[in-house]
Amino acid sequence: MSLQRRMHSLPLSDVKITDSFWGRWQRVLIDVTLPTQFDQLVATGRIANFNRAAGKEEGTFEGLWFNDSDAYKYAEACAYALTIRDDPKVRECLNAVIEAVTGAQQSDGYINTFFQLLHPTLKWRNLNMMHEMYCGGHLIEAGVAVFECLGDRRLLDVSIRFADLVMSVFGPGKRRGYCGHEEIELALIRLSGATGNSKYLEFARWMVEERGHSPSPFEAELQDPESVALWPRTGSLLTKQGRYDGQYAQDHLPIREHTEIVGHAVRAMYLYIAAAELGDDKDDTALEQALLRIWNNLTGRRMYVTAGIGPSSSNEGFTADFDLPNLSAYAETCASCGLVFWGHKMLEMTGDGDFVDVIERALFNGALSGISLSGDHYFYTNPLESRGTHERTPWFTCACCPPNIARLIGSVSNYAYGVSSDAFYVHIPIACEAQATFNGVPVQLKIESDYPWSGKYKLTISPKKPVQFKLLLRIPAWSSEMEIDLPTAEEPADYEGGYAVFDRTWTEGDTLTIDLCMEPNWVEADPRVKDNLGRAALCNGPLVYALERTDFGCAPQLFSADVEAPVIVQKEKLLEGVNTLMVEGLSIKEIAFDELYSPVGSTEMIESKAKFIPYYAWCNRGPTDMQVWVRQM
Amino acid sequence: MSLQRRMHSLPLSDVKITDSFWGRWQRVLIDVTLPTQFDQLVATGRIANFNRAAGKEEGTFEGLWFNDSDAYKYAEACAYALTIRDDPKVRECLNAVIEAVTGAQQSDGYINTFFQLLHPTLKWRNLNMMHEMYCGGHLIEAGVAVFECLGDRRLLDVSIRFADLVMSVFGPGKRRGYCGHEEIELALIRLSGATGNSKYLEFARWMVEERGHSPSPFEAELQDPESVALWPRTGSLLTKQGRYDGQYAQDHLPIREHTEIVGHAVRAMYLYIAAAELGDDKDDTALEQALLRIWNNLTGRRMYVTAGIGPSSSNEGFTADFDLPNLSAYAETCASCGLVFWGHKMLEMTGDGDFVDVIERALFNGALSGISLSGDHYFYTNPLESRGTHERTPWFTCACCPPNIARLIGSVSNYAYGVSSDAFYVHIPIACEAQATFNGVPVQLKIESDYPWSGKYKLTISPKKPVQFKLLLRIPAWSSEMEIDLPTAEEPADYEGGYAVFDRTWTEGDTLTIDLCMEPNWVEADPRVKDNLGRAALCNGPLVYALERTDFGCAPQLFSADVEAPVIVQKEKLLEGVNTLMVEGLSIKEIAFDELYSPVGSTEMIESKAKFIPYYAWCNRGPTDMQVWVRQM
Repeated sequence: MSLQRRMHSLPLSDVKITDSFWGRWQRVLIDVTLPTQFDQLVATGRIANFNRAAGKEEGTFEGLWFNDSDAYKYAEACAYALTIRDDPKVRECLNAVIEAVTGAQQSDGYINTFFQLLHPTLKWRNLNMMHEMYCGGHLIEAGVAVFECLGDRRLLDVSIRFADLVMSVFGPGKRRGYCGHEEIELALIRLSGATGNSKYLEFARWMVEERGHSPSPFEAELQDPESVALWPRTGSLLTKQGRYDGQYAQDHLPIREHTEIVGHAVRAMYLYIAAAELGDDKDDTALEQALLRIWNNLTGRRMYVTAGIGPSSSNEGFTADFDLPNLSAYAETCASCGLVFWGHKMLEMTGDGDFVDVIERALFNGALSGISLSGDHYFYTNPLESRGTHERTPWFTCACCPPNIARLIGSVSNYAYGVSSDAFYVHIPIACEAQATFNGVPVQLKIESDYPWSGKYKLTISPKKPVQFKLLLRIPAWSSEMEIDLPTAEEPADYEGGYAVFDRTWTEGDTLTIDLCMEPNWVEADPRVKDNLGRAALCNGPLVYALERTDFGCAPQLFSADVEAPVIVQKEKLLEGVNTLMVEGLSIKEIAFDELYSPVGSTEMIESKAKFIPYYAWCNRGPTDMQVWVRQM
Repeated sequence: MSLQRRMHSLPLSDVKITDSFWGRWQRVLIDVTLPTQFDQLVATGRIANFNRAAGKEEGTFEGLWFNDSDAYKYAEACAYALTIRDDPKVRECLNAVIEAVTGAQQSDGYINTFFQLLHPTLKWRNLNMMHEMYCGGHLIEAGVAVFECLGDRRLLDVSIRFADLVMSVFGPGKRRGYCGHEEIELALIRLSGATGNSKYLEFARWMVEERGHSPSPFEAELQDPESVALWPRTGSLLTKQGRYDGQYAQDHLPIREHTEIVGHAVRAMYLYIAAAELGDDKDDTALEQALLRIWNNLTGRRMYVTAGIGPSSSNEGFTADFDLPNLSAYAETCASCGLVFWGHKMLEMTGDGDFVDVIERALFNGALSGISLSGDHYFYTNPLESRGTHERTPWFTCACCPPNIARLIGSVSNYAYGVSSDAFYVHIPIACEAQATFNGVPVQLKIESDYPWSGKYKLTISPKKPVQFKLLLRIPAWSSEMEIDLPTAEEPADYEGGYAVFDRTWTEGDTLTIDLCMEPNWVEADPRVKDNLGRAALCNGPLVYALERTDFGCAPQLFSADVEAPVIVQKEKLLEGVNTLMVEGLSIKEIAFDELYSPVGSTEMIESKAKFIPYYAWCNRGPTDMQVWVRQM
């Protein structure tokens, strides 16, 4: 069984990232992030929970009820990392996780250490909030990743047994049910791909299609005292009138009727990833139209300039159109990771390069800000303003974000390039060496670039023998003009879905040089975003920039930018090597007034220069004041 | 026993407010506010709770555990209102409350219908959160008010029995304890004044002085499971490290060591009212210095321009210096009422007119905004920006604010004028006719004004026979210059504590005309208030102004003001008669962008005029967008 796809990613082992930017992140991933995350898994009982469920260790369940998922996501990240470099320490950590997990599975296929250790009689009783299938979904993703990347079947076999158990309980003609926190749907689709068994795909389709039809299976759970006792804060699941409100879990309407993005942001992303795969598979236009509607609502009205999504802490998710507060932005790291994943599926479904504009905005900003340059401190939330209290920490009680950003960094090439049988796509020109086969001919592809610090890159194509295939080079929305040099001086055959298309026969050593003409540029938000009125944000290529007190010397909120003055780009060693942007403007002097409120004109203004750094790199020199949307002079 | 005071208010019955502004509020108070509040007290079981505790009615306790206090504050407001006009409906409502309350008191003096009906064995077990003495404090205030205004002793006798019971349980040599929500301290001081018995004053002093010494009596309550069961959300009473944190209830340090204002805003106000009385009584310099420190921290760093205080909903109170968010401002109506009360005690203690600047800021803005022009809808919180969702409602589950603003309106003359044996103070020139005695001679005083719409007023002094006394006319901080005409053309003898002082012999018909030169003026906030950088607020005399969508036609956030252009004052019939202020500036056109984020320069600006209305009057034409701090051009 294989999905019908317009394009797909290259296997991770067929691409080697060679650039200084993502290359460094992947080195840090292997040398720092994965070893320290393993230590956290151990220190917080996440590994012990499996061993206790296996009876190999004394003790009861420790931590939050969905903590198993962190170990699974971690294993997935390790699998990706090991395609980059076969590091013995990472291999050992992965092996420890696999051994712990395989030992804990029950003979019937069930695995969830919270229920096994604390509530063995209450399995599948609170699907809405207790995350059994969510955890199972991450198990399956890990199983598929470890198998596909390393050929190791151990977790895959655990996954298959779990999936088969779920399908023995739930499904058409059996119990109607799905997980409050979507994840297993997309995982089952991956499992279908890895095993060639379409039953998992069809079961995922059933769960996606059942969701949102009234009555919800979650309504009955609210009437079940034992279910409620597992998660008593049910008030947040009800409308003001006390009725069940499905929005939090995207359970308010059948998916084809969704028009706006609602509820918990990560849940929403994971649902729509699965839905996009399903729509792609069947060329399901109605589903595709629904997904485009939701996507447009999200990216046109509810997404931060950093591609942070889900502004509110109260539901970890969405509120209303244009409600994008900066200081209190929730913008969970996982949600921006999820946006990369969903955007990628939309790209595969449509072939439309506009999706890459969002993918790279999330990748280089809202997601990447979630991890420190050192690779061992994290943000859970990613505000666009700080007054000095927002801080990176080594771990969280609810630690979904650290392994999520780890698996994203490990698999970044998935989002940079795409292939089909007769086409190669450069979505994002990250420097790499890759191999692929077009029309039966193996081809070496090499990208040399200094992305995201420059928009210039060189692409060398080396087929075993001359071969015809299409080359599609994305024209980013931020690129004012794109210059392409082929030695033969030919023009692109076409422009299609945001790509310049060359359709020709390629021979050994064919080389293109491309300049995306990256220039610093100021953007304004739609005036319905009240928090950004009179303000501007500074971008350069895919990067959004921010002003920190550390560079400015006083609170960045005091600064107002002259958006018409030239912006000076400076390559610096600072922050592991970044381009800083020097901006001219005015600054209010941070002097104390005699009175809290004084006559207008009391503030003193001075001419001022401000050095902006990439948003992803903020808060790497201690907690400090920061601002993305600065006032315009 | 009487407190040693520099000055005091005139008895309410010796002043008749004659101005169109407060005169209208007091008419509405009697005709609308008090009758509808009584209906709410009945409809929500607040009266029934007393009758049930008395055994006169079937049923159990209804509502929140401190609901008795609403009936008491209501009775206090009725007492004040009946000095304004002897209205039969209000008299009947007050009588119904008094009868219900007197019937409910136990023979030992205890009265708290929550504990009597639900937890008779758990009295005095959770002083921190269960509000028994807080409710008792409001009972005492009502008892004193009804007695002093109407000569009716019924509630006073209930109060005395309750106070005596409290003093039989707590005090030096007995159990150490005080209420988590301060109130009874200030009430006992009033009771001392009304009864001439200094034991209540000394007991109040003991409670104020005991507070904040370690260990707190509330720490033991946290170890008492039955106490915790009464109010289980104890997490909010602990530090991050899990230790008891007294800040919420100002129980973190002995009062003389307080430097910053912390915790729940209304609690803080009520504590410091009592402390100011105690400091005044004994000329206690150390206590006075502590209070001035806290006052300066509050008004110099933690008070909105509207004199709203307590920015955060999480503790209904204070956070950090200069943390004054506009949209999410909590700024409870009760807290601004409390600020008027505390400011007034500070004024009496010091004679310093600077306190009146804060009192009238709170009175005309942050407190008065809490009630609709119609007198029957309320705000609990008073933000300085709205995006259309903030709304007035007829009542609240926690209904502390409606009767608080009612008692403030009923007693407004307390804050406008002051007397001592040889001096008359005009703090706020509200039009009135008053009588007082100076150096033994009865004097009629008459103020004619159109305050707050004009800063001009006329003061006529008519003693029975020529008499020497000091006349002190406040010079508001907002007054750029003050012109005073006496027919004899003499200059003030002195300027003292923010007052122009005339010390002379007055004879029948002596008349002064004063012009405080009220002009619209823009203010800026100290630049450490990050939310207001680049913004200005428009004021005129004591009033802060706001821009509503209703007048502007589109979101007020789109407007930026030309703070150098002339502001046109226009007297209008609108909103029961206000002066509006017309401002010039620019407005961003509220047009949708094609993309959420577009190149700078995408916004279109148009020249624009904006009509501002007084802040207190906002949201009287339906919920709408509103802004106080507008951007400067």
